[in-house]
Amino acid sequence: MSNKCIITIGRQFGSGGREIGKALAESLGIPYYDKELISLAAKESGMDAEVFQNVDERATNSLLYSLSMGLYSFGNKFSATGDLPVNDRLYILQHQIIKKLADEGPCVIVGRCADYVLKDRDDCINIFIHADMEYRKQRAIDIHGVSKHKAEQIVNKTDKIRANYYSFYSGQKWGVAQNYHLCIDSSKLGADKAVMLIRAYLDIYGE
Amino acid sequence: MSNKCIITIGRQFGSGGREIGKALAESLGIPYYDKELISLAAKESGMDAEVFQNVDERATNSLLYSLSMGLYSFGNKFSATGDLPVNDRLYILQHQIIKKLADEGPCVIVGRCADYVLKDRDDCINIFIHADMEYRKQRAIDIHGVSKHKAEQIVNKTDKIRANYYSFYSGQKWGVAQNYHLCIDSSKLGADKAVMLIRAYLDIYGE
Repeated sequence: MSNKCIITIGRQFGSGGREIGKALAESLGIPYYDKELISLAAKESGMDAEVFQNVDERATNSLLYSLSMGLYSFGNKFSATGDLPVNDRLYILQHQIIKKLADEGPCVIVGRCADYVLKDRDDCINIFIHADMEYRKQRAIDIHGVSKHKAEQIVNKTDKIRANYYSFYSGQKWGVAQNYHLCIDSSKLGADKAVMLIRAYLDIYGE
Repeated sequence: MSNKCIITIGRQFGSGGREIGKALAESLGIPYYDKELISLAAKESGMDAEVFQNVDERATNSLLYSLSMGLYSFGNKFSATGDLPVNDRLYILQHQIIKKLADEGPCVIVGRCADYVLKDRDDCINIFIHADMEYRKQRAIDIHGVSKHKAEQIVNKTDKIRANYYSFYSGQKWGVAQNYHLCIDSSKLGADKAVMLIRAYLDIYGE
């Protein structure tokens, strides 16, 4: 069972969710997608990946308006998204790519509302990784190169952007236990043990 | 490590948190406290347990007012709580009893803001158990004897009371992943496997 599921990972900034997701995918021998989804979306649309990079996991306020105006469809052709803000175009492209990747087989997908996008599948395990502020600040400094005096501000701001994005596109609250199969505080375990725990979950779930 | 910790369990109504907590305590060979905290509070205060039963895990709006008026202290003597509403008297008694029980050694404590009460200890594992609405409705009918057409209403109402209680006394949001070491959807695993997962967590945490 361990490697038969689609695993989605939501994560607070600085919690190590990306590292955990990557190590988990490697240990299960299945593909891992995070920022890779931007390159795939760029390839599908013919746009520059850098344009998408700047708006990744950021919500606009235009999607509902655009939907109500019938400015695009959720079909297989992307041409109808041409008039949308780039945030929404990226979301729609990622939405379709995530569904396609899940159809192809087991994988780990980090962020991008993947739990919501795949909500109708019964082979998904949705995980949320969070951590205490000290742990996240330190990781922001050590790994993301954030300056010490700005670390807390950037952690909070990035989380707010992610929460808005998740809430805007899914209509659900980000980080509320109810939305996930399993939520883990990575600052209490560290990344390696968090991976062990997820492996244990998959084994127990599949028994 | 498995049986060296104080384990607190918050739970949605109908999620099986009580059953999971009890089975976990039995499997670890440590004491379990849930409604037992009412009897202990009644014994300490000399009041009737039935009076406390009716207000258990329900908040009043009076505690901050009472605190500001200096109507009682958080010392070891309970006499100063005499003028408080019974909800607050019970909270204060349970607060003190939970601290004392934790000092005595490893145990499982369900509900009653135990995670918040014991927040200054470093030997606590805080767990939140939730489940999807169908699972909880069915358990409310089967185990709590709730009628089918009122099940959803009672599930939602009980959760709201618990959320208010938790928020009122702890100042934190109930059911937000951030507040717990581990959150588990019991409807995806069932009670037995949820216990297995918590045991796995304790083993991995203690390695």
